[in-house]
Amino acid sequence: MTLSISTRLAYEFATPTDFLLQIEAAVIPEQRLSNTRLTTTPSEYFTRVSAQDDVGDRIWMRHEGPFEINYAADVAIERMIAPIEDLPMVAPHDLPAETVQYLMDSRYCPATHFQHFIDTEFAHETGGARIAAMRDWIAASFSYEAGSSNSDTTAIESFVERRGVCRDYAHTLIAFARAAAIPARFASVYAPDVTPMDFHAVAEVFLADPTVDAPGAGSWHLVDPTGMAKPEDIAKIAIGRDAADCSFITFYGSAELVAKDIAVTRTG
Amino acid sequence: MTLSISTRLAYEFATPTDFLLQIEAAVIPEQRLSNTRLTTTPSEYFTRVSAQDDVGDRIWMRHEGPFEINYAADVAIERMIAPIEDLPMVAPHDLPAETVQYLMDSRYCPATHFQHFIDTEFAHETGGARIAAMRDWIAASFSYEAGSSNSDTTAIESFVERRGVCRDYAHTLIAFARAAAIPARFASVYAPDVTPMDFHAVAEVFLADPTVDAPGAGSWHLVDPTGMAKPEDIAKIAIGRDAADCSFITFYGSAELVAKDIAVTRTG
Amino acid sequence: MTLSISTRLAYEFATPTDFLLQIEAAVIPEQRLSNTRLTTTPSEYFTRVSAQDDVGDRIWMRHEGPFEINYAADVAIERMIAPIEDLPMVAPHDLPAETVQYLMDSRYCPATHFQHFIDTEFAHETGGARIAAMRDWIAASFSYEAGSSNSDTTAIESFVERRGVCRDYAHTLIAFARAAAIPARFASVYAPDVTPMDFHAVAEVFLADPTVDAPGAGSWHLVDPTGMAKPEDIAKIAIGRDAADCSFITFYGSAELVAKDIAVTRTG
Amino acid sequence: MTLSISTRLAYEFATPTDFLLQIEAAVIPEQRLSNTRLTTTPSEYFTRVSAQDDVGDRIWMRHEGPFEINYAADVAIERMIAPIEDLPMVAPHDLPAETVQYLMDSRYCPATHFQHFIDTEFAHETGGARIAAMRDWIAASFSYEAGSSNSDTTAIESFVERRGVCRDYAHTLIAFARAAAIPARFASVYAPDVTPMDFHAVAEVFLADPTVDAPGAGSWHLVDPTGMAKPEDIAKIAIGRDAADCSFITFYGSAELVAKDIAVTRTG
Repeated sequence: MTLSISTRLAYEFATPTDFLLQIEAAVIPEQRLSNTRLTTTPSEYFTRVSAQDDVGDRIWMRHEGPFEINYAADVAIERMIAPIEDLPMVAPHDLPAETVQYLMDSRYCPATHFQHFIDTEFAHETGGARIAAMRDWIAASFSYEAGSSNSDTTAIESFVERRGVCRDYAHTLIAFARAAAIPARFASVYAPDVTPMDFHAVAEVFLADPTVDAPGAGSWHLVDPTGMAKPEDIAKIAIGRDAADCSFITFYGSAELVAKDIAVTRTG
Repeated sequence: MTLSISTRLAYEFATPTDFLLQIEAAVIPEQRLSNTRLTTTPSEYFTRVSAQDDVGDRIWMRHEGPFEINYAADVAIERMIAPIEDLPMVAPHDLPAETVQYLMDSRYCPATHFQHFIDTEFAHETGGARIAAMRDWIAASFSYEAGSSNSDTTAIESFVERRGVCRDYAHTLIAFARAAAIPARFASVYAPDVTPMDFHAVAEVFLADPTVDAPGAGSWHLVDPTGMAKPEDIAKIAIGRDAADCSFITFYGSAELVAKDIAVTRTG
Repeated sequence: MTLSISTRLAYEFATPTDFLLQIEAAVIPEQRLSNTRLTTTPSEYFTRVSAQDDVGDRIWMRHEGPFEINYAADVAIERMIAPIEDLPMVAPHDLPAETVQYLMDSRYCPATHFQHFIDTEFAHETGGARIAAMRDWIAASFSYEAGSSNSDTTAIESFVERRGVCRDYAHTLIAFARAAAIPARFASVYAPDVTPMDFHAVAEVFLADPTVDAPGAGSWHLVDPTGMAKPEDIAKIAIGRDAADCSFITFYGSAELVAKDIAVTRTG
Repeated sequence: MTLSISTRLAYEFATPTDFLLQIEAAVIPEQRLSNTRLTTTPSEYFTRVSAQDDVGDRIWMRHEGPFEINYAADVAIERMIAPIEDLPMVAPHDLPAETVQYLMDSRYCPATHFQHFIDTEFAHETGGARIAAMRDWIAASFSYEAGSSNSDTTAIESFVERRGVCRDYAHTLIAFARAAAIPARFASVYAPDVTPMDFHAVAEVFLADPTVDAPGAGSWHLVDPTGMAKPEDIAKIAIGRDAADCSFITFYGSAELVAKDIAVTRTG
């Protein structure tokens, strides 16, 4: 699958403001980029640094006044896709050290609170089948409602409200998975069939690779509880503990969003 | 400074429970360990993995029934101590990539909410002097009250309540620092003058090293807003985004604490 | 049913502190009190005022230093009991004006958040049968665990955690009922079979009285989702929007609880 | 002062929905209404009931499809205005019984959390002077920013964020006052100089009447920490514990706001 991505963001910064952007498709083995183009209003500086777990880059800039950034790229996605239902979990003590952080409670995924519910509601499945049951439970219980959540909404409120947008669906699945001792992280992505078109968010869970005969052998698998995106169609931008790590913009000052236009189309 | 540390934890696990321990002083360049001894009730397994940022280890175990772990070590602390008041901040775009995660909102440190307060209350200091002002503000505004907070208490509630225990003090300083674009992380530690004696928690901030002529050159500095521990007296156990990463025990099941005895004394 | 109640509270007030007590069984038509005795450490003043909806009294006192209050009474309960399953709801526009406040979100019962869940999970029942289904759902989903909640725990957290103590059970049922447009309030009570013995809390819902041919005719019915108390065994102390209105003590200063002994036995 | 008020609300109800409106200026001694006109789309029913503390009415309606309500009135305000700075507080034990509920924690005003801050920050004033100091502190510390809060924002978050809209200012002052044992309630009002023009919200506090020689003699005084409205210019719609009691619309179902137009002008 090849996606053609085009993003335009425009802001007005009332004062000189440092900000951090995460809007480019990540250059990682499973994503081959071509025809990339990034243009911005000239700013005080422009620095790229590796983002969380070396998936993608973060761009630091600083600017005052009107600002615009345009990004375009074609992304050929060559991701190994496995039906998660068939994958066992990795026993906690076999988990690779770097995945353990994705068991911990985070800003939007206070997983500890969900242990009792998970133990009861998903008592009969394990591993990937349990994740699939969680995904299906969320898909069946939640309604997707634009504007029904805000930047303070955690998986707690989403679980009670039974509604939200993509990030709320992802946060809830991440909290569920962690409560079951399965590492789960947040992926900020581009995907073609998102309605309304916008940056998209999905969960990623760490499950065992049954074809490799070594304890702890496993890999990350994208799971979208909204059902809007399939792993083979997803271009990752950044990953993190939750949305707090993956905002398309984080700023230190005040910023007014003037325009946000995103287009993602299948081109191959 | 050499500290002699002795810790005993006893739990009762009603069902077979996976758990993660972070109770050993970290083996890192600034801490030289000797006479270490770790003994536990025999359990289903025992695995050590590197903890966050390779500071210390995490131990995975699984057990049912009564469980006890005893740990002892002598820790010679050889930490470079700098008066933080004199240290500049590292400009955001010069920050080493791995420190940027410590600017983000986390479970107990939703820093974004504090930006307006920080911009106003600490408008006239920068860098380490600003951190010192934040530390002093917390020390002056808060009262230390055992039992005044719980495992859900974030920096938001601590800031409103103006009281808490060491972890609440640390969370508040971390949230303040991040709101000022200064990376800040949580350190779970041993320290000798903690009252009542227990695991202790402090903040650690990333500031520039003015003696090195390279953008981004900097290091982490321990800061204790409770005033109970000095950096030269602190033995680090683990570091993380906040207390969620550094619990002395995280378990998947139900556990009843039977005993927790901690002793930390200066021996050299 | 007659209950014999005996309560002893002891506090230490470090500074002169105003406080409000709600510990006496209410003198209301459905409760006939005898052998009442209230003795306290002499204090700066002692004033009784009617409590919420004229159910019971509140006592204001002010004291510094050690303080003790002892209360005893026999309460003959003559409450009309109806099987709530058979009672219709009162249409919102027919509700008596003074019950409408019990539809509103309150400190511990932010009912609005539960509307989607209630509409889906309890779609097929109405009125008292719906309340009974909610009560049974909570009883089946929750575990009663002393110490699992705190003074900040709302129905939101209880619903996610699926556990709590009596006040959490009551708050959750109240939030559910209000989300269904059925007025619900909190009752602080004495009941004989509470384990461990303590002040108890239940919900009270307003349902139609089908024997009276007038729109809005209805009455309040006690419902205990913990299953520990039956309406005919319950001596009401106070009612309110939620626990915030009915604390056995509310103080303006600092107070240390020294002793709390409660005994409730059936004597007739 | 006479205000001329005109309000138009339009909604689209996707399903038959019960809703409660609180949009009319209250008929109370201090407000003389004339030229009132209320017109609505015909609906399934229309019932008025007295609102909280008998200040104003609540209107119940039920409708499906497009709905519009228009309200207009002239309100002559004849309110006794006292400089609150000169008014003593009523000692808690002298408070009229019906004011005690306004000391309790409510949905948006969890006052208990603020006791330590209030005791420290406002240690040197009492009564009305203390309220004035609180009002001035909020006015100086907060910035008024449309869109900076949402329907979940409590005084806790507003206090940390140091910003909000009129209801957040009011909630913060109410929480402060209650933490000082001064009854405080929320008033939903019309006022002429509100920018942008909308329903407005202020706090109301209960202070002693020094001209009356009786313990507990006191009255309610409007206080607007945003500084946008003066008591003599305010037409009360409803009062309550906080915004949860005074929403201009509360509905049981789903409603889409189509239009909200409010005009308030001085006409005498």
